[in-house]
Amino acid sequence: MIERGAGGHGGYAGRRVLITGGLGFIGSTLAAALVREGALVTLVDSLIPEYGGLLANIADIEDQVKVNISDVRDEQSMLYLVQGHDYLFNLAGQTSHMDSMEDPYTDLEINSRAQLSILEACRKRRPDIKIVFASTRQIYGRPDYLPVDERHLVRPVDVNGINKMAGESYHIVYNNVYGLRACALRLTNTYGPRMRIKDARQTFLGIWIRRVLEDGAIEVWGGEQLRDFTYVDDVVSALLAAGLSTATEGRALNVGGFDPPVSLAVLADLVVSIAGQGTCVVKEFPADRQRIDIGDYFADDNELRAATGWSPSVGLRQGLAATIAYCRENLEEYL
Amino acid sequence: MIERGAGGHGGYAGRRVLITGGLGFIGSTLAAALVREGALVTLVDSLIPEYGGLLANIADIEDQVKVNISDVRDEQSMLYLVQGHDYLFNLAGQTSHMDSMEDPYTDLEINSRAQLSILEACRKRRPDIKIVFASTRQIYGRPDYLPVDERHLVRPVDVNGINKMAGESYHIVYNNVYGLRACALRLTNTYGPRMRIKDARQTFLGIWIRRVLEDGAIEVWGGEQLRDFTYVDDVVSALLAAGLSTATEGRALNVGGFDPPVSLAVLADLVVSIAGQGTCVVKEFPADRQRIDIGDYFADDNELRAATGWSPSVGLRQGLAATIAYCRENLEEYL
Repeated sequence: MIERGAGGHGGYAGRRVLITGGLGFIGSTLAAALVREGALVTLVDSLIPEYGGLLANIADIEDQVKVNISDVRDEQSMLYLVQGHDYLFNLAGQTSHMDSMEDPYTDLEINSRAQLSILEACRKRRPDIKIVFASTRQIYGRPDYLPVDERHLVRPVDVNGINKMAGESYHIVYNNVYGLRACALRLTNTYGPRMRIKDARQTFLGIWIRRVLEDGAIEVWGGEQLRDFTYVDDVVSALLAAGLSTATEGRALNVGGFDPPVSLAVLADLVVSIAGQGTCVVKEFPADRQRIDIGDYFADDNELRAATGWSPSVGLRQGLAATIAYCRENLEEYL
Repeated sequence: MIERGAGGHGGYAGRRVLITGGLGFIGSTLAAALVREGALVTLVDSLIPEYGGLLANIADIEDQVKVNISDVRDEQSMLYLVQGHDYLFNLAGQTSHMDSMEDPYTDLEINSRAQLSILEACRKRRPDIKIVFASTRQIYGRPDYLPVDERHLVRPVDVNGINKMAGESYHIVYNNVYGLRACALRLTNTYGPRMRIKDARQTFLGIWIRRVLEDGAIEVWGGEQLRDFTYVDDVVSALLAAGLSTATEGRALNVGGFDPPVSLAVLADLVVSIAGQGTCVVKEFPADRQRIDIGDYFADDNELRAATGWSPSVGLRQGLAATIAYCRENLEEYL
């Protein structure tokens, strides 16, 4: 198994760091890395069951972090919580595309309005905080060309993508207008230990892993689509690097993966092969999903590499092996 | 004076048309054009003083339209109002950049959330309605190249631009996902009779016209910036053409002006010269505005022309003369 969040970023020792969505998959992995760096870490999470937060995610660091259960939509809490912090990793979000179509208002409240109130809280109570916002490749929509760089038009295909686009833009505007130091990382499919496997709300890969570990069949829709994948430790090192860099301020930068993109059919075979159980079946794309599918996607992340020196280091096979091993060992916690 | 909203679009005779922001500058001019076409027109407006709605705007057509005073943020009213209409011209919005920075939440509620609830209302109660949304060049931010076409990145420089960007995107997504027929026109500076001249909340040109008609001085900030201007009748004919076209569906298209762009200094001289009164003084850009200024902007509107056959027909000198004459004659109503 890969050592969790191997890092060596310095700069965070003794610093006060707030993480929204801190009990989620990425947030908790980031928290563990920051604890190792000697940061003083506070995690904010609403623990809404449909989202990613789980206390089990911080079982091994719970005595070394502060946990504050509250919702980023709660403006008063956020006004208080941002105070006294040097860094804000703003990871709280509603991630399900389907949920955003069924209940667009909740998606808007979390992914847009709450982002505005977090930024207003920072502007009023902690203007010298540095903010790193977790954005998503979803805002690009269906690519015109590959790999997708930051010059590509943003053209979201669902309500979730629109609201994340707005949330990202607020960060950039508050950086430019108010001198808050903020940047955004546009994440692609992130996977790793502690990922949500209960359902497909974070990524389809989660439910795939669940299926094979339950000896069932992965349903691959289509199968030819190319995608890139970032191991969670590589996302964490990107977040940490972005937080310490001044070159990222006011920018929204892509995060890609270590390996070249793979087709979903190849990925499914790999998951089955690494798990040593389960099967996969290729199906036609369901009509309601087809309309918001984006085809092939993979990122050009050279801007982030140039700005920070960051690069990913965990290949897909190695990352999947670590992920599947973790999920197998902790299956009950994640169902 | 130019005949109001000269058109000849056919297709709207006997059709039921709903206009949000219908008592505003563009909405009321559109309403008059539709009445002439024989449409059955209902105007929705909140008459909030800071926005554009004025009953005086429909003095000459008030017996020929239905007026419904309500706010687009009122989901229940909108659920009722969209029913039975064939076309929705969705023009209600908060237009002030400065107001959006001072109260970003209200801007979000009107320009983003209300747009979502209007679309949800259409989806649930009137899925075969055709929707034309008034978007804005503001969403492009500071241009990378000129003229700006629809391939240009959207990169808003203020909260208003972000929320309008989201409002526009909802329309495109609802078109693509739900088969609602919707399009958006990205308007540049629109001017003409009935424009808001009380303050600069719609466009700086409004307050300029007020200043000269009160024998005062236009304050030109900078002066070298190039901008394009669309006479309101040309915007109305673009809206009408977009509503009747199937080629516009799912697209967001630029609207430009008849004349080449002019610098603000040249424009100010033209306003003073046509008005035959007032003066202009060039001032340095105020710091709080500089941060959200976009420099030069003018549109490439060839996509809209190709899709609909539309083209603007009113030159700047002719349009300004008509505008200033109207404002002079009706000054009291508009202060």
